[in-house]
Amino acid sequence: MAWQTESIMARKGVAKGVRGKSHTITEAEQGKYHYVYGPYFDKVLTVDPGAVVAAETHDAFEGAIKSETDVPSKILNFPFLNPQNGPIWVNGAEKGDTLAVYIESIVPRGPQPRGTTVVMPEFGGLVGTGNTALLNAPLPERVKKLEITAEHGTKWNDKITLPYEPFIGTIGTSPEIEAISSLVPDYYGGNMDLPDVGVGAIIYLPVNTAGALLYLGDCHAAQGDGELCGVAIEHPTVTTVQIDLIKGWPIHWPRLETKDFIMTIGSARPMEDAARIAYRELCRWMAADYGFDEIDAYMLLTQAGRVRLGNMVDPKYTLGASIKKSFLV
Amino acid sequence: MAWQTESIMARKGVAKGVRGKSHTITEAEQGKYHYVYGPYFDKVLTVDPGAVVAAETHDAFEGAIKSETDVPSKILNFPFLNPQNGPIWVNGAEKGDTLAVYIESIVPRGPQPRGTTVVMPEFGGLVGTGNTALLNAPLPERVKKLEITAEHGTKWNDKITLPYEPFIGTIGTSPEIEAISSLVPDYYGGNMDLPDVGVGAIIYLPVNTAGALLYLGDCHAAQGDGELCGVAIEHPTVTTVQIDLIKGWPIHWPRLETKDFIMTIGSARPMEDAARIAYRELCRWMAADYGFDEIDAYMLLTQAGRVRLGNMVDPKYTLGASIKKSFLV
Amino acid sequence: MAWQTESIMARKGVAKGVRGKSHTITEAEQGKYHYVYGPYFDKVLTVDPGAVVAAETHDAFEGAIKSETDVPSKILNFPFLNPQNGPIWVNGAEKGDTLAVYIESIVPRGPQPRGTTVVMPEFGGLVGTGNTALLNAPLPERVKKLEITAEHGTKWNDKITLPYEPFIGTIGTSPEIEAISSLVPDYYGGNMDLPDVGVGAIIYLPVNTAGALLYLGDCHAAQGDGELCGVAIEHPTVTTVQIDLIKGWPIHWPRLETKDFIMTIGSARPMEDAARIAYRELCRWMAADYGFDEIDAYMLLTQAGRVRLGNMVDPKYTLGASIKKSFLV
Amino acid sequence: MAWQTESIMARKGVAKGVRGKSHTITEAEQGKYHYVYGPYFDKVLTVDPGAVVAAETHDAFEGAIKSETDVPSKILNFPFLNPQNGPIWVNGAEKGDTLAVYIESIVPRGPQPRGTTVVMPEFGGLVGTGNTALLNAPLPERVKKLEITAEHGTKWNDKITLPYEPFIGTIGTSPEIEAISSLVPDYYGGNMDLPDVGVGAIIYLPVNTAGALLYLGDCHAAQGDGELCGVAIEHPTVTTVQIDLIKGWPIHWPRLETKDFIMTIGSARPMEDAARIAYRELCRWMAADYGFDEIDAYMLLTQAGRVRLGNMVDPKYTLGASIKKSFLV
Repeated sequence: MAWQTESIMARKGVAKGVRGKSHTITEAEQGKYHYVYGPYFDKVLTVDPGAVVAAETHDAFEGAIKSETDVPSKILNFPFLNPQNGPIWVNGAEKGDTLAVYIESIVPRGPQPRGTTVVMPEFGGLVGTGNTALLNAPLPERVKKLEITAEHGTKWNDKITLPYEPFIGTIGTSPEIEAISSLVPDYYGGNMDLPDVGVGAIIYLPVNTAGALLYLGDCHAAQGDGELCGVAIEHPTVTTVQIDLIKGWPIHWPRLETKDFIMTIGSARPMEDAARIAYRELCRWMAADYGFDEIDAYMLLTQAGRVRLGNMVDPKYTLGASIKKSFLV
Repeated sequence: MAWQTESIMARKGVAKGVRGKSHTITEAEQGKYHYVYGPYFDKVLTVDPGAVVAAETHDAFEGAIKSETDVPSKILNFPFLNPQNGPIWVNGAEKGDTLAVYIESIVPRGPQPRGTTVVMPEFGGLVGTGNTALLNAPLPERVKKLEITAEHGTKWNDKITLPYEPFIGTIGTSPEIEAISSLVPDYYGGNMDLPDVGVGAIIYLPVNTAGALLYLGDCHAAQGDGELCGVAIEHPTVTTVQIDLIKGWPIHWPRLETKDFIMTIGSARPMEDAARIAYRELCRWMAADYGFDEIDAYMLLTQAGRVRLGNMVDPKYTLGASIKKSFLV
Repeated sequence: MAWQTESIMARKGVAKGVRGKSHTITEAEQGKYHYVYGPYFDKVLTVDPGAVVAAETHDAFEGAIKSETDVPSKILNFPFLNPQNGPIWVNGAEKGDTLAVYIESIVPRGPQPRGTTVVMPEFGGLVGTGNTALLNAPLPERVKKLEITAEHGTKWNDKITLPYEPFIGTIGTSPEIEAISSLVPDYYGGNMDLPDVGVGAIIYLPVNTAGALLYLGDCHAAQGDGELCGVAIEHPTVTTVQIDLIKGWPIHWPRLETKDFIMTIGSARPMEDAARIAYRELCRWMAADYGFDEIDAYMLLTQAGRVRLGNMVDPKYTLGASIKKSFLV
Repeated sequence: MAWQTESIMARKGVAKGVRGKSHTITEAEQGKYHYVYGPYFDKVLTVDPGAVVAAETHDAFEGAIKSETDVPSKILNFPFLNPQNGPIWVNGAEKGDTLAVYIESIVPRGPQPRGTTVVMPEFGGLVGTGNTALLNAPLPERVKKLEITAEHGTKWNDKITLPYEPFIGTIGTSPEIEAISSLVPDYYGGNMDLPDVGVGAIIYLPVNTAGALLYLGDCHAAQGDGELCGVAIEHPTVTTVQIDLIKGWPIHWPRLETKDFIMTIGSARPMEDAARIAYRELCRWMAADYGFDEIDAYMLLTQAGRVRLGNMVDPKYTLGASIKKSFLV
């Protein structure tokens, strides 16, 4: 953990980015998983800043799709999708604070084939949906079950193997009074499906209510930009995160930090609004913390900004806008 | 109540569209108003199908803006906006049913000037917002307080008077497990801000959870198409509705019926998706209940469909698509 | 012609709104019809302000679809669609001027069944298209041929007759250096498919190049809001317009005037941008010509503005925003 | 030129990807630059497949912005922006063919400071525009003039230097009958502002009319994803391309090939439609040329596709969707 000692988490966190007590949230400890991000549920765990939590996450279908002959539309029971671990209460967290979550490791678990991806009706980036509501007939449903190991990645077929590049598809804090489906990404995080939320990154999340109430789940073994058909390589994992708390550094949308860059994350429709949110937040961050005039930041990002498309399939689309730390001088 | 005896409510409702017991929800009976549509709150009233409920609604600011010198951004406390009466439990309502709500009357209440409209930062159809996130400076804030009577309408200024054309800005049932801000419109209704939801109309709402859990509020004394600056003529009222319950007629989005037309209502971003939802629902309705081939319905709506823009300012935009009953032969 | 004597055309036009010399553009006089709006073609007619022009318009398919067994995708030859009469050179017109076009009459012509509407692949509001590019299979193609008379309207089937409510689907001036497909609507007019552009209305169009170069065509016998499947009741006509020229009153987007209201017309994607364009132009018009403060206009339109959806199917969507003249006091 | 010998251009091109005759288009040879992509202008050069053309490109402002005290809105004369070299007639090219353009080199030219970027009114990704038409006041205008060398890149300020990563902002073939502003990107290429169109890449463009009529210009010394403020590091160059012609391989949107990946390019609004176009074209390409079932391609891209945002500021937004060649097995 080299660069992390210089991270925002280390510099601003209550725990100074130092690993604290270790906790687990096994399936048994979790008990009932959650399908919304909200303040209306009993906390499953209480931690201090610095805590390290290893959570047994389910796949997005809670393991219900077991075979390539399964028919997703008959098995899945909306809105009980995308099960989440949590909520985790973080001691001392208050509205206006920021939660820092360092993603320490993601390890696949469960019997093979552990991986699942599907094409299902009215969902996906190249089909009519409940929002882009059309009269065309849906595509036929299709299920792929895939073997995954951390060492060898995902065996797509005899010729193609996808490297194991796991990340957390859904992570966030609770809204203050809303309880939002875990299928939705928004200002508090949620179902962003952004591959940068991977091992070694720190994600910063706004605290909207006492205790922050962190949820997470929906880990992907691999995903392309946009999560095109709507379903990445879904798999159950043990995901380990280190949680810190930052006072006096309020943020309005999720932020992310790696060794090389800082990123802001926007979720909205149409897609250009997600890009606007992400880039405006980045302009403001550069102005607030890195000494830029806001318009100079705007002009520099024009030449040096980078965009990562998370999803183009969820109820809101997600993009991350980033700039290399080497430009923040 | 002439045409109503032939309405869908009268033909399909458990109470056959007949007025039942009368109830009130005064401010005192309501107690705490709600800012989300969800299943996590105690019901304020339990009724049988046929019940008539007279509710004292607040304006969208809960009366907090009292003077034209008030500064909305200093007074308003997001997310505690758009207070709602309810939830009303309807006996017998189950997921998959449909609630029918006939809007019997809307009467302004409270001391003059009762009406309020404002321009506030980051909200409105012709300004940058939290979603259409821009670097431009916001417009200056402005408040207008307006006298309203049912007889004479809203006195805009010495030269202009707006007729009193009241409607319910926000009405809907609870989602099954979500609790969504009352600022949002969606499949369950909510903050549609659609002027057709006015006196004499029947709105049909999907039931998503036991008891239906009806909420309503946010009545407008007048509103143009799109609710352009984001704030109609907001005013407190006594709003009286007759509630019926329809079994075996599931719907996916709100529908509306008047003497002359049937309408389907979609809410989404971008705006074309709201239009697609509304028109697809109308095609399907015409196919299911009026004997049309779905593609014939599509072609006829091309020649005879009508669109009403509700709002172009809320988290989702709302449009209603309608066709005259005279074409449904 | 009562209200027209008080119209903007009458008050500001070079010809004071007075009917001048009469001209025709028969099919023979037109010769080759045009499929783009641009400055690169010989003028078909030169007129003075005040001129009345009766043009023989083709239907949008140039008459190629003759039978209900025709298959549009095999017959139509993109981009040679939506044939236009013109260009008409207006003497004295210069960049920065405004053309006023009063729509005097639209009369159906040609052998019965004169009317045509179709469902064709990759075109329409409720299907995937070349822009909303999806993998779903297209709908089956379908053609309806319809009898139309001015007296009795369009006979849809044995039970339904659509009143004859004709309007000009496509009308506009030439861009300065671009030549844009006649399928596109934009700042110069073009394929707006807005039913308000009907008999008795005056449309105002920006002049972008010397002579204005007016084009028109694509008359519809009836059309619903949004032109849902992409094809209204297309029919050939004799369309008669009176053309005037306004100096010193530059406009940026088409405007429209009737006895009762003034309207501004925006075309863009996504649809909310079309609405923003239309409403901003209306704010600015009210400020420039009717004594409103721009923000007051914005607030009044919030209460009294009206929106008409022209098309939700063309390369840009078109909306008109209007306000009653009775509010412009 | 190692991988290029295995490129599609080399395998399918009339000239087999072999360098042919060398040509120049100096400023003097070009004479009048063009501001539209269309078929209405005299060709500036006629070449055979294989030809190598070195063109003296202007910057997007045709050199008009010379000092940081210049005020863009007073100097620039819309629509005479983004001057283009061409059209180049390619012998043998017919509608339905594909042009292959290998970008051999881009070399900055002209006196220092050669580079220009500006913030100007109603243009950019984080401001209201002519389409996203708002009432907010525009940002103040700002000009930055920058020294550029191929060796050292662009000196942004004393602390920041941007590496020289040049690409062609605007390149494409003529539409068949339209003449479209060089500010617009679309199916024929145009103002895509996509950094992947850089030195060493091959771009494939659909031929829409005899001779193909290739235009190019608008080279950027550096640009971030999205070209946020609307203006990259604009600079005049000598840009050298090798042109080949492919018969019997029709394409509907631009494609791009590098050593490592193949890419499809979509341009549309809203942004999700650009993404849909790009990804659908990629699915179809994988199905047509690489042996994939179309739905399998869709599912694999879900896991392994990459998206590059070109611009979020032009009349249409541009994205490229790509997949590594190593997955095309």
